[in-house]
Amino acid sequence: MKYYLGIDVGGTKVAVGLVTGEGRVLSHVREPTAEARRSPGILASLVRLSRRAAAEAGVEWGSLAAAGIVLPGPTDPRGPTMLAAPTIPELEGVPLSPSLGVELGLPLAGDNDANAIALAEARFGAARGARVAVYLTISTGIGGGVVADGQLFRGASGTAGEFGHLVVEPDGEPCACGGAGCLETVASGPAIARRARRLLPRHPESVLADRSWRAGRSWDAHLLADAARQGDAMALHVWEDVGERLGLAVASIINLFDADCVVLGGGVMGAADLLLPTLRQVAAERAMPVLGRPVSVAPAALGEDAGIVGAAALGMAGGGGR
Amino acid sequence: MKYYLGIDVGGTKVAVGLVTGEGRVLSHVREPTAEARRSPGILASLVRLSRRAAAEAGVEWGSLAAAGIVLPGPTDPRGPTMLAAPTIPELEGVPLSPSLGVELGLPLAGDNDANAIALAEARFGAARGARVAVYLTISTGIGGGVVADGQLFRGASGTAGEFGHLVVEPDGEPCACGGAGCLETVASGPAIARRARRLLPRHPESVLADRSWRAGRSWDAHLLADAARQGDAMALHVWEDVGERLGLAVASIINLFDADCVVLGGGVMGAADLLLPTLRQVAAERAMPVLGRPVSVAPAALGEDAGIVGAAALGMAGGGGR
Repeated sequence: MKYYLGIDVGGTKVAVGLVTGEGRVLSHVREPTAEARRSPGILASLVRLSRRAAAEAGVEWGSLAAAGIVLPGPTDPRGPTMLAAPTIPELEGVPLSPSLGVELGLPLAGDNDANAIALAEARFGAARGARVAVYLTISTGIGGGVVADGQLFRGASGTAGEFGHLVVEPDGEPCACGGAGCLETVASGPAIARRARRLLPRHPESVLADRSWRAGRSWDAHLLADAARQGDAMALHVWEDVGERLGLAVASIINLFDADCVVLGGGVMGAADLLLPTLRQVAAERAMPVLGRPVSVAPAALGEDAGIVGAAALGMAGGGGR
Repeated sequence: MKYYLGIDVGGTKVAVGLVTGEGRVLSHVREPTAEARRSPGILASLVRLSRRAAAEAGVEWGSLAAAGIVLPGPTDPRGPTMLAAPTIPELEGVPLSPSLGVELGLPLAGDNDANAIALAEARFGAARGARVAVYLTISTGIGGGVVADGQLFRGASGTAGEFGHLVVEPDGEPCACGGAGCLETVASGPAIARRARRLLPRHPESVLADRSWRAGRSWDAHLLADAARQGDAMALHVWEDVGERLGLAVASIINLFDADCVVLGGGVMGAADLLLPTLRQVAAERAMPVLGRPVSVAPAALGEDAGIVGAAALGMAGGGGR
């Protein structure tokens, strides 16, 4: 039995776990990122948490085969090095193999979270067995990763799979990327909430217009999902529309990458019950029928431990591909 | 010096040439496909043309390293075997290594034309030196191929790079693929001609409305290009619009594949003078700016011999990748 260390560094929390070669999580320890950054610093904390994760799993340090780390920003897998680290600036530009890797005494691979989770879903999750697995995460932003034959397809500069920046509106709204009309401007969590807010003045009958119903809640995709689940017509309309938009995007992605599995994750997939039926129908109607390519469109399977498993999967792959 | 045999089988003509390991074409012989199919059959003709190409190049058969074949339809590189061969039905389902390859006495790799030309442009043409090269062919249909680190990215079933089936219109026209609103329905040669024809009733001032100007010419993208080059406003408008559509598509492709070079080929690129300025500007505006990724958008460089060089490149790559 081979064991791997998975380190998942996020902007708000750090999670470390022991993972088997089959992707089973044996332990996980967590700490707020702010706490982990305190003296003597984030790297020392990651070593401490790693030792604890191994102890909790009852696995001897000497039997660990490799470590992987998931980082909250664009990462060059050589190093691995964060290229931009807004939430943890002290990690920007620091190659982690010669520092953290040496400290741990393990080979260390690393990448951003979307790539790591794509690899984890392809090897151990909803895309197991797929030749070309695409992972799409729909949250505050929209991102993703592509895994072909078990290896990450990273692109020329490590940003392949930026599905949020599929251009879907010729004259669409400005996007944070500097472009306009990107998928992210119409189907991310904030975009969904914004769309509902714009429709509201024309829909005084909507439960969303009822201040007492909304009391104390923020105007977001979760609120809109609750309204839809109560049968609110305006909310249902927005989800139908978003499901269609995402379905068209998934069809394009299938046609371009010749993917046989598309995995959908991220916070907005909390509304999978509202999104998936339309999304799947539109994707099936609009993707090219290719002989011998049944395409599965499935929700992510790894849940909360996806980051730890993704980090471990990077360690197993020795960097995870190109 | 290594020599490769490149066999380019098209629906209308067959071309065979000798190519060096650096992609230089030493000879080419051509024959109409209809003639090559006559008794004793296409495979015997390909052997005959191959011998002639070697003789014309003054290269001894024994010094050939490998052969490659480009086929006019979806091809499984294992075999290689055409999966559908509407123009040459006798090749459908026939593995060519055990037949043609044995007859030639050479290892034989094969693929469809878009993949082969993508590989040739990446290794020897406009995308030389790129890490991720995308080739887009705009003709009667729109297709393409993706080459990463010198290897074809084929997808789950060999159809990756079907850029004509990027969905660009939510409620667009039906497409030959069974979907609707695909890029091919707005930017292929026939789609461009169709669009101009629809605009014509509103533009009696256009030179295209002048029957004597059009006399004896078919209504196609070439006609529309000639009109635009004479300064015809309606024709210029159509090309501007198509350039914008293609620019948006190229931006999406860059964002999804993280390509550092996009090569444009196919008959419609005969109007590169009309298309490229708009296309490049829109692509630059809408692609994500990624640090250290200058993206080149360039016309195909290999011209008429692209098929022969592509076939030879498949031979060099021993199948060309996954």
